[in-house]
Amino acid sequence: MKTTLVKSLYRESTKFSGKTIQISGWIRTIRDSKTFGFIELNDGSFFKNIQIVFDSKLENFKQIAKLAINSTLLVEGVFVLTPEAKQPFELRASKIVLEGNSDSDYPLQKKRHTFEYLRTIAHLRPRSNTFSAVFRVRSIAAYAVHKFFQERDFVYANTPIITASDCEGAGEMFKITALDLNNIPKKEDGTADFSKDFFGKETYLTVSGQLSAEAMALAFRNVYTFGPTFRAEDSNTARHAAEFWMIEPEMAFAELKDYMDVAEDLVKYIIKYVLENAPEEMAFFNSFIDKNLFDRLNNVVNSHFDRITYTKAIDILKKSGQKFQYPVEWGIDLQTEHERYLTEKVFKKPIFVTDYPKEIKAFYMRQNEDGKTVAAADLLVPGVGEIIGGSQREERYDILEKRIEELGLNEKDYWWYLELRKYGETKHSGFGLGFERMIMYLTGIPNIRDVIPFPRTTGSADF
Amino acid sequence: MKTTLVKSLYRESTKFSGKTIQISGWIRTIRDSKTFGFIELNDGSFFKNIQIVFDSKLENFKQIAKLAINSTLLVEGVFVLTPEAKQPFELRASKIVLEGNSDSDYPLQKKRHTFEYLRTIAHLRPRSNTFSAVFRVRSIAAYAVHKFFQERDFVYANTPIITASDCEGAGEMFKITALDLNNIPKKEDGTADFSKDFFGKETYLTVSGQLSAEAMALAFRNVYTFGPTFRAEDSNTARHAAEFWMIEPEMAFAELKDYMDVAEDLVKYIIKYVLENAPEEMAFFNSFIDKNLFDRLNNVVNSHFDRITYTKAIDILKKSGQKFQYPVEWGIDLQTEHERYLTEKVFKKPIFVTDYPKEIKAFYMRQNEDGKTVAAADLLVPGVGEIIGGSQREERYDILEKRIEELGLNEKDYWWYLELRKYGETKHSGFGLGFERMIMYLTGIPNIRDVIPFPRTTGSADF
Repeated sequence: MKTTLVKSLYRESTKFSGKTIQISGWIRTIRDSKTFGFIELNDGSFFKNIQIVFDSKLENFKQIAKLAINSTLLVEGVFVLTPEAKQPFELRASKIVLEGNSDSDYPLQKKRHTFEYLRTIAHLRPRSNTFSAVFRVRSIAAYAVHKFFQERDFVYANTPIITASDCEGAGEMFKITALDLNNIPKKEDGTADFSKDFFGKETYLTVSGQLSAEAMALAFRNVYTFGPTFRAEDSNTARHAAEFWMIEPEMAFAELKDYMDVAEDLVKYIIKYVLENAPEEMAFFNSFIDKNLFDRLNNVVNSHFDRITYTKAIDILKKSGQKFQYPVEWGIDLQTEHERYLTEKVFKKPIFVTDYPKEIKAFYMRQNEDGKTVAAADLLVPGVGEIIGGSQREERYDILEKRIEELGLNEKDYWWYLELRKYGETKHSGFGLGFERMIMYLTGIPNIRDVIPFPRTTGSADF
Repeated sequence: MKTTLVKSLYRESTKFSGKTIQISGWIRTIRDSKTFGFIELNDGSFFKNIQIVFDSKLENFKQIAKLAINSTLLVEGVFVLTPEAKQPFELRASKIVLEGNSDSDYPLQKKRHTFEYLRTIAHLRPRSNTFSAVFRVRSIAAYAVHKFFQERDFVYANTPIITASDCEGAGEMFKITALDLNNIPKKEDGTADFSKDFFGKETYLTVSGQLSAEAMALAFRNVYTFGPTFRAEDSNTARHAAEFWMIEPEMAFAELKDYMDVAEDLVKYIIKYVLENAPEEMAFFNSFIDKNLFDRLNNVVNSHFDRITYTKAIDILKKSGQKFQYPVEWGIDLQTEHERYLTEKVFKKPIFVTDYPKEIKAFYMRQNEDGKTVAAADLLVPGVGEIIGGSQREERYDILEKRIEELGLNEKDYWWYLELRKYGETKHSGFGLGFERMIMYLTGIPNIRDVIPFPRTTGSADF
């Protein structure tokens, strides 16, 4: 008999009413009396379980009744709608086959576990309600991202993970090597001889695909990356991971306002898509993780994101009378407390803050006429703070070259990036959306370690 | 005026007939006489160019007529269908604005360049016909992969890139470190002290997401990964890169034959999707890269992929009378010459070869009853050889543990992988499709360096 998925049973229950079907899955709960029992079975295809009713007419009743949680079963039986009961239907088992045992010391018993504990069993936690919901939402949100861009004819660009250049010029990069770390070949001056390494030079894990994406955008007009990026930053916070996924669209013939339009559309699209395609999971988050989730997300979908300059934002913060831990002055990098004050107290919705001082932004951002600011914009959202950073890119060869020099970067590393400004330059813009930040925002899960199946953070690369 | 994309002009040309529109893009070719000129403009949105006609009525006629290839233009004009001409339509320019100059030493002049040369200008080669077609097909094929699995409710699992364990047990891994390679901290015995490193232990770039994907499959039933993987293998061939993308589906309650069904469907789906959604690019490949491309791909789509055992395959090869460079004996790893002989001379279509000797396959593959072979299957295709490798996974704790021991692997590294067999074991299967191999197969491009925007291979990590 062909196996029926529990998802189909929920989506088209009347179609199966009264039919004999076969399902397979894992025991989430089991209870029995002397002559009958109930099993909540999860088959992986769906957030919810199906109730199995079995009784002593089964020849292996006693064996089944004693099974441990998460044992694997094949079940045949009649599918019955139960409109009067708590669950919408049940399967009355005519045959249950034990496909795989579970030891009785199974660490995910039916009780509340802390998220901290669950991280120590990352190989098993996707079987819990919370992580089943998180990782399915993650998958659906990832698909929404691809759908959004492909429907708009953006070309998906796989930019390199291994790189010899530092996009942000910030230096917080992991090194990659095939050398024997116990016996590194040295040059005459005693330093490591990377000419003997796999790539013949020093290489790193990328912090951003942007520079490469720009090269692609100047051929394909609109492109996006969606892949892992890395930061060897020793910050042990709930918002930082050493490995995380980024979405980096890059658009030729686009100014700062064009980037903001696309970014606003993208955020709304992802939220709507997930609400529509993971209703059970989202209802779970709204009930058990963040009671304001639906209100917050609906507010985002239905708002126009305001756009204010950094200078205006500083002005608002200074006049607010609010005491901040980090004092507010024109020129400072906005801290999360500032960002949250602006979105939560003042605007009560997402806002773009634009035109930041050039000193606190990256070398590739386009300089404004005032000589002090750059055409950058960050998207700040209530409850989280910055979720997207982007800018118009400096397309003027001379100004870009001068900025690279001013900041003490090595112009040789950027030869090809500069050449993009020499052959068919055009204004272009792009942005980066941290995928995990978006998932945290979508689910209300407060720690980045809990939206990545196997997170990598300072001191932790288990599994 | 809103900019119209050239793709829309091709897809809905009658809609724009006679209308004044604005487009923007890059000059691919330009020629002029004293009073008029022609420009082939590419706007990035589409493989094909649009012809611009301009004449001396333009006030900047002389400036425009002298522009170098790949200069960036904004053009306004009347869109005119030209059914009698070679091109289907043209834009009669009323206004041309130079948005960005291109220097006259632009390295991509309109002449044939070797692929080798184009690799040295990887930042510019997406602007050539061939690479424009390759990378757009790559994007469309990637989307086909996501669509295929999401439509079938597979959960997209982002498995970690940074790992402390070696999935294949083959040891060809890049090391990742945040230590100063000029001054590595040492332990008392003189070896490197990784307890001082970022993760507190030795870490590597992953060679496969499979082991993590198995953990996810035992929660979600059907999952897939699609991300970069790495191999520090010093093989300078046309088929090997140090960084490449893999698709790794993993399915619970699935036997070897189930994997083969899904893999066959996937390959056919990708081919059909790309043929439908990139007809211009595919026609280009069929004309200029591989004249047999359409025949070959259509043959795949319309064939049932045969399935033969390894033992049978060895038998066929031995009886063939064919002289092979590598002699054929039961127990050998099949070489590309053997694989191609089987698919091209014997079967003339893709085949799965199943049940390989366990000695030549990985530790996690399920042992067959004969004690000699494992439930593995590779998909071989004409013209390329192996394109997919997969297997049923060993779900029996004792047998898996014994195999890990036999092969001298460190059981401690696999504690959580073994535990998956302790709590709710079930038969499960999965496979890996090398995405670049698939793109090579789809396009006829013979070198892996030419299907990756910025390839990483032995000695080369430029851009």
